[in-house]
Amino acid sequence: MTAWWMARPPRPDADTGAAAAARWDGLTKPPGSLGRLEHAVTRLAAQQGRLTPTIERVHIAIFAGDHGVAQRGVSAYPQVVTSQMLANFAGGGAAIAVLARQLGAALTIVDVGSVHAEHPLPGVLDRRVARGTADFTQAPAMTAAQAEAALSVGAACVAAARAAGADLFIGGEMGIGNTTAAAALGCALLAAPPEALLGPGTGLDAAGLARKHEALTLALARHGAARSPFEILRCLGGLELAALAGAYVAAAQARLPALVDGFIATAAALVAARLNAGVIEWLHFAHRSAEPGHAPLLDALGGCALLDLDLRLGEGSGAALAVPLLRAACALHAEMATFDGAGVSTTAI
Amino acid sequence: MTAWWMARPPRPDADTGAAAAARWDGLTKPPGSLGRLEHAVTRLAAQQGRLTPTIERVHIAIFAGDHGVAQRGVSAYPQVVTSQMLANFAGGGAAIAVLARQLGAALTIVDVGSVHAEHPLPGVLDRRVARGTADFTQAPAMTAAQAEAALSVGAACVAAARAAGADLFIGGEMGIGNTTAAAALGCALLAAPPEALLGPGTGLDAAGLARKHEALTLALARHGAARSPFEILRCLGGLELAALAGAYVAAAQARLPALVDGFIATAAALVAARLNAGVIEWLHFAHRSAEPGHAPLLDALGGCALLDLDLRLGEGSGAALAVPLLRAACALHAEMATFDGAGVSTTAI
Repeated sequence: MTAWWMARPPRPDADTGAAAAARWDGLTKPPGSLGRLEHAVTRLAAQQGRLTPTIERVHIAIFAGDHGVAQRGVSAYPQVVTSQMLANFAGGGAAIAVLARQLGAALTIVDVGSVHAEHPLPGVLDRRVARGTADFTQAPAMTAAQAEAALSVGAACVAAARAAGADLFIGGEMGIGNTTAAAALGCALLAAPPEALLGPGTGLDAAGLARKHEALTLALARHGAARSPFEILRCLGGLELAALAGAYVAAAQARLPALVDGFIATAAALVAARLNAGVIEWLHFAHRSAEPGHAPLLDALGGCALLDLDLRLGEGSGAALAVPLLRAACALHAEMATFDGAGVSTTAI
Repeated sequence: MTAWWMARPPRPDADTGAAAAARWDGLTKPPGSLGRLEHAVTRLAAQQGRLTPTIERVHIAIFAGDHGVAQRGVSAYPQVVTSQMLANFAGGGAAIAVLARQLGAALTIVDVGSVHAEHPLPGVLDRRVARGTADFTQAPAMTAAQAEAALSVGAACVAAARAAGADLFIGGEMGIGNTTAAAALGCALLAAPPEALLGPGTGLDAAGLARKHEALTLALARHGAARSPFEILRCLGGLELAALAGAYVAAAQARLPALVDGFIATAAALVAARLNAGVIEWLHFAHRSAEPGHAPLLDALGGCALLDLDLRLGEGSGAALAVPLLRAACALHAEMATFDGAGVSTTAI
């Protein structure tokens, strides 16, 4: 039986996209003068199958997971922060919670693999597949069953979002050590050395960076035989990364555009695009992170990010920050006057 | 008597700025991880004199003016478009009108110097100083009295915005040919050659670019003796550019932060900063325009733009697009939980 994540997503509706692009050219502004916002709306039109797309119902899902590799001192924060932040997401004090309120977005908090959380936690879905991954410098991060289960957690969240009428999906993540896992995935998928994707994450010092480099080197050596995207995800990924990847695949399959956050989310998006090439036509990229490894991941996906603000917070926060831009672009596309309608001359001199 | 635009603005409140920066560091996120948004909010706090600044009441003023140099074929559009767009601003169909509605912002449309408008026009303030400027390849663009009057039009708009309780000012412009005037101002103020600030504006072809280059060369040669910022503005500027410059000076004098739009607005901001150095502490820069000459103007002002989306529309549209980012940043600063309050560990490993 073929895995669910291999089923090809539908293509966005090219005719509607072309009509949306033509609409831009008739509005009272110089052609192309709204820059990359025009392209984003045109893509949304094709994805949503609507001449004038809208972003009314944003669904944000935050996936939390812990990482065995964290024991090697690759993060500036202790592992318990993953669980503490679950409560902070649900309690409304985390950045993404503030932003979700501002956007009127639905926010789902999902424990896919924390070590320390004790459920039930109010406002947190307990979908824990395991209490963290194995240290991937020593063993595969996950069993095949765990990776499959985590992919399905993401897909189930997308199904719920779709059923609730979402017109844009944002996935976020929380997991102490997960820039190391994201970098490992990126290195393996792009056949790049650790240096290409190494970065300070939430604020690692030089000694921490050296430990992170060593961990990446060990992990890539140990799992060099992993070739398929699924095996790479299983050996070098994380539970929240797998859930994100599953969510991106499921969103594409459900015709739901996804707005990808920063470094870690983009690593998961690259996994999703390698699991299923049709995913890429359903992705938007919100921002270019301060994490230096983000650029090669975006390049590999052909992604042009909307924002570049030196963000490095995660949680889907950069994606949430880009939503008002997309909403404004949709409003411009839907509401601006046409040259004909406004009696404005288009005659070149 | 010293001109009103020479009166030094107050300084932003450094103590409040420092307290706002300290507040960022206590919130549940890695220090500095909201990147440039943190800096923007810290500056707003100092400007507004409030620990947690807000952007509730945005006031947008669009200044329209025509340019004698337009007769030299330096724009892709005929001059009548300036007046046609006045009606489109007031009628709600222009980009800035759509964005102002989205933001709940006040929008004032001001004719400072169109050639063709016939007043009264519903929704347009008739503050016309002259029916366009003189062709500055042949003569100074404005008389001293005209330049002074246009500066004062901008200041009066800011006074009205302040009286109405505005907490952020956005100036926009409309004027066929005004990228040529903005480039001329930039070249004169930065002692740069035409090539450094030449660009296609709303979409000039190669022949048009050659005409624009020639016009800039002629104008800079003719007015090379202009040394003071006021004389440079008078000889090489435009009525809407002068109004914008006056608005930026007046905003700083009234402790009102201003969010600067793209190439033309930044040229006016550079005029304002040269007229009165204290202005610069009250400016924020919304975006980096697709117009190649924008970069040297931003650099001269030490400005770090929030957005970079290949916009080249003007009308204040890029500034309006950046407002939701600043609002989101203010909400994060005001509403996020502290490490202490949320019981989240800050202990480094």
